[in-house]
Amino acid sequence: MAHVFDEALALERTDAPNRLTGATHPAWANMVGPFGGITAATLVGAIAGHPDALGDPLALTVNYLAPIADGPFELLLNPVRTNRTNQHWIVELRQDGEPKTNATAVFGIHRDTWADTEALMPEASGPEDLERNRQEFPAWLSRYDLRIAVGAPVLELVDASPSSEILLWVCDAAGRPIDYAGLTAAADIFYPRVWLRTGQLMPAGTITLTTYFHASRAELDEVGADFVLGSAQANRFSRGFFDQSATLWSRSGTLLASSHQLVYFKG
Amino acid sequence: MAHVFDEALALERTDAPNRLTGATHPAWANMVGPFGGITAATLVGAIAGHPDALGDPLALTVNYLAPIADGPFELLLNPVRTNRTNQHWIVELRQDGEPKTNATAVFGIHRDTWADTEALMPEASGPEDLERNRQEFPAWLSRYDLRIAVGAPVLELVDASPSSEILLWVCDAAGRPIDYAGLTAAADIFYPRVWLRTGQLMPAGTITLTTYFHASRAELDEVGADFVLGSAQANRFSRGFFDQSATLWSRSGTLLASSHQLVYFKG
Repeated sequence: MAHVFDEALALERTDAPNRLTGATHPAWANMVGPFGGITAATLVGAIAGHPDALGDPLALTVNYLAPIADGPFELLLNPVRTNRTNQHWIVELRQDGEPKTNATAVFGIHRDTWADTEALMPEASGPEDLERNRQEFPAWLSRYDLRIAVGAPVLELVDASPSSEILLWVCDAAGRPIDYAGLTAAADIFYPRVWLRTGQLMPAGTITLTTYFHASRAELDEVGADFVLGSAQANRFSRGFFDQSATLWSRSGTLLASSHQLVYFKG
Repeated sequence: MAHVFDEALALERTDAPNRLTGATHPAWANMVGPFGGITAATLVGAIAGHPDALGDPLALTVNYLAPIADGPFELLLNPVRTNRTNQHWIVELRQDGEPKTNATAVFGIHRDTWADTEALMPEASGPEDLERNRQEFPAWLSRYDLRIAVGAPVLELVDASPSSEILLWVCDAAGRPIDYAGLTAAADIFYPRVWLRTGQLMPAGTITLTTYFHASRAELDEVGADFVLGSAQANRFSRGFFDQSATLWSRSGTLLASSHQLVYFKG
């Protein structure tokens, strides 16, 4: 039986090689339209499944143009340029001919080089020592086993906080092992930092999201279905927008991905 | 007389409203092709100069697909979607019909909201207390007055360094006041972090660059032609790639932009 994550990512081929069709999945519904992470994962999955895809995802920028309505969509894949070791894509998600989301992605082939992780893994209690977040709305939240180490859960937000930092463990609630698509979705797991800072659930949404993929396939296989540690913090809130930067870590200290986004807010 | 920065950004209209032509400028030459920052600034400037542009730049992702040859290029501007308060663009730079660079950009209208800068401005000696970097190759370096507070200048790299952090003051050497295009270029001012870490000048180049614009026009006007403080550091170097995150600050402590990039390296 297909996992509910893979069900959401399922796409149908069409007569045109670079045109696929899919549909939103109710299990991944957000307040309006689908969880942004599942949309991003769908785009990465679509490229990875293309017969001409070169290597693994290196970088992804997703622009959320307009709300995606519940129902079918089409994906248009444009392999803009293939070099010897990397490949650039533009993908567009449309509904009724209207662009709703687009993305640029870089895929590529890795090779052995000097290596070092300079970022420091944040210290946190283990997931076993933390309570599972039991919020079930919006629907997509129940798809994850999410345990917050630093920062208030959304439902407990009442006071302003001096820091927007959140630190949490997350894994697929149904035990699906992580892969590049799963990592893509997890990078968008953090609720808007402005909620934590102000203690108020004002309207807010991601406008553009960029993720850099550091993990090798072997490193993702080593994580399997285990928790990963996610950390996110904002830099500046100003005039209706803020940015946040996030990192995702394996329990053993591998930096799997770094991710950044610009978010609009009203308040 | 036009400033050499504005000369590089000069574009010609064509019969098609979304097609412009331009040319690389020798004053901004890098080792291969133009300085990536001037290319990014050209794309932002092209959108800002479009009659349909809405508000100011919010976010920009530039993908460096292939080396730009010295000489003419064309820009294709695609206003993908205009919402009430923001607007999404795709821009492509071509030479002889071949895509060399592309970008997605979000422009938009700001409004008054709750505001706070959470990132901390790094402490550094003032630019007056630091020596000006006198490196004149590649050519674009001389376009800036650049004063390094933390981290070795490129020409003094000999030893490996335990940190990839660099902290520097930078302003236009000819006194051009900063604007969004100038800020865009400055976000790419930092030489590859892998050089600092390893002490070796191995081949390295930006693959994709994302910048979030925090500064208002009034904040940029306040900076004028003064120095801005730039800080950059890598997260992880692995298998031929690393990411770096940067912030740009006014002398008075305004976070003007945050910027991230993925860089390939050979070594």
